[in-house]
Amino acid sequence: MIKIVLDCFGGDHGPEANVEAAVAALSLFPDLQLVLSGDEPVLRKLLEGKEYDGGRLEFLHAPQVIGCDERPTDVIRLKRDSSMIKAIRLLRDDDSVAAMVSTGSTGALVAAALTRIGRLQGIIRPAFCPILPTMNGGLVGICDSGANVEVTPEHLRQFAVMASLYMENVYGVQKPRVALLNVGKEAEKGDELRQTAYKLLSETAEINFVGNMESRDLLSGNYDVVVADGFSGNVLVKTTEGTALELLKKLKKDIYSKFIYKIGAALMAKMFRDEKDFMNYQNYGGSVLLGTSKVVVKGHGSSKSTAVLKCIEQAYKMQLSDLGGKIEEVICRYDHYEL
Amino acid sequence: MIKIVLDCFGGDHGPEANVEAAVAALSLFPDLQLVLSGDEPVLRKLLEGKEYDGGRLEFLHAPQVIGCDERPTDVIRLKRDSSMIKAIRLLRDDDSVAAMVSTGSTGALVAAALTRIGRLQGIIRPAFCPILPTMNGGLVGICDSGANVEVTPEHLRQFAVMASLYMENVYGVQKPRVALLNVGKEAEKGDELRQTAYKLLSETAEINFVGNMESRDLLSGNYDVVVADGFSGNVLVKTTEGTALELLKKLKKDIYSKFIYKIGAALMAKMFRDEKDFMNYQNYGGSVLLGTSKVVVKGHGSSKSTAVLKCIEQAYKMQLSDLGGKIEEVICRYDHYEL
Repeated sequence: MIKIVLDCFGGDHGPEANVEAAVAALSLFPDLQLVLSGDEPVLRKLLEGKEYDGGRLEFLHAPQVIGCDERPTDVIRLKRDSSMIKAIRLLRDDDSVAAMVSTGSTGALVAAALTRIGRLQGIIRPAFCPILPTMNGGLVGICDSGANVEVTPEHLRQFAVMASLYMENVYGVQKPRVALLNVGKEAEKGDELRQTAYKLLSETAEINFVGNMESRDLLSGNYDVVVADGFSGNVLVKTTEGTALELLKKLKKDIYSKFIYKIGAALMAKMFRDEKDFMNYQNYGGSVLLGTSKVVVKGHGSSKSTAVLKCIEQAYKMQLSDLGGKIEEVICRYDHYEL
Repeated sequence: MIKIVLDCFGGDHGPEANVEAAVAALSLFPDLQLVLSGDEPVLRKLLEGKEYDGGRLEFLHAPQVIGCDERPTDVIRLKRDSSMIKAIRLLRDDDSVAAMVSTGSTGALVAAALTRIGRLQGIIRPAFCPILPTMNGGLVGICDSGANVEVTPEHLRQFAVMASLYMENVYGVQKPRVALLNVGKEAEKGDELRQTAYKLLSETAEINFVGNMESRDLLSGNYDVVVADGFSGNVLVKTTEGTALELLKKLKKDIYSKFIYKIGAALMAKMFRDEKDFMNYQNYGGSVLLGTSKVVVKGHGSSKSTAVLKCIEQAYKMQLSDLGGKIEEVICRYDHYEL
């Protein structure tokens, strides 16, 4: 059995999306157990009339609600009875709970996870690893993308190892091609951080390091893992999402500007739907936190039930493949570095 | 008269594109003088049969050719008779020459400009400022985007002042809205560099600082200038260009996948052409180097003649508006900082 706690009161679509995802996940994975964190009466009400295996579903009553604009530190300190913080505490204290999924505030979740949940042995800094679709139908993981704005070369090496094992174990990518985000392809490009990291990554036998990547090649399909400091990784991921969304919006607006375009677009309706699906990050699951001693998956705030289901699947697969154990096994070979 | 030296042997489209742009520029701007740098017999041959005011065209014979993969330092040291280096030397030595345009190697051009051409008074670090189109038909300048991978808050303040004056004087943007690239909107987001820069920018009366910008909002039209360190600014610009190009490529491929889509696309042919034009950075000119004592404009390596013409126009307008003088006037008010 794999037991996952689901923070049901995080995202924009409220407990409805989470409860729906929970029911779907239980039927999809026979050895999955779920703990729903949140206002129990509300959750029970939402479950009424739904069919599921009640023996694999528990509740963690958490009546407090976190507001949109609350500071992460305030959430941790003052909202101890919120669905997110109670879920984190359960994850920390209950050995039978393996993972947590939340679509709540990123800042609060990261802060709570980093201070309440320990790190894997040898890991200096846990890091975020979201996934984007590439143009040849593959996926690329970007690590870090926001948990650490300041990093060292050794951090970057650890991000590379973690994300590489993640892509291999959760998405079945063989020998993931790992690249370092840089301002040019040549080994000597970038600042001292990038130059030292390049050397360190080249020397790391456990990863398939293929060199520097320029940001314009992110979606090319030539890379499976991109390693970055949390600041530029964040810029990389959000610029990609933002540009894609803005372009689709513009296309839509332009289509409505002329009658003949509307006819053309009607003939291409399915194609446009496919493009929209393709660029919809909801279809690719959440951003996982790599390096914590227990699995934490952060879904996008706007996640609907299918996106939450993807997040549960990610957490489930990370635990099933013993990703944490595999990361520790590689990292401990390098434990002579700055620990 | 405004005299500009054009490095004719830089880009992928060779001297043909540059010569064509030169002829067009001379007819567009009656008080423009051009110096064509490159292999003079080749340039003269390309000009045969073209109509232009020969009294405003000079040649700077430069027979040496720079290879694609040459290191910037080698170019400066060993290719003293190349079109780029001779143009830089002319710009440095000849008081009558106000500006330079090149579509050659960015690394070599920046290195040569920074070492051969002085800086404006008070400027610590010149910076690159490319332009991207926004979704409401406007433009946004991103400064820095690659010249300085490591920066201080004071550098960022200078980038803000320079880019703000650039958008105002060259593109006529009134009170340009200046934002700081960051991982979140709140003032306390990001590392120490970003937090200190936020404060410094807020205190700078000469700019219209509107706060932090998340990278997904770059094309929103809510900002006229985005200030960034050269590393993340580079990621921001290249990710935007890369995502747009990849998406358009995907659209094209998908259109050809079904007969009915081809019919739909035929009805929308003009629209798709417009979208392609819209996202084609060639239509928005080059990346200007702000802060050097003379104007340097770097066009994209793939620039065709229309793109080179845009670059000449940018250089011309920067000189015409005395952008350098205006930058010095503001910067000198802050010259008590780390100079």
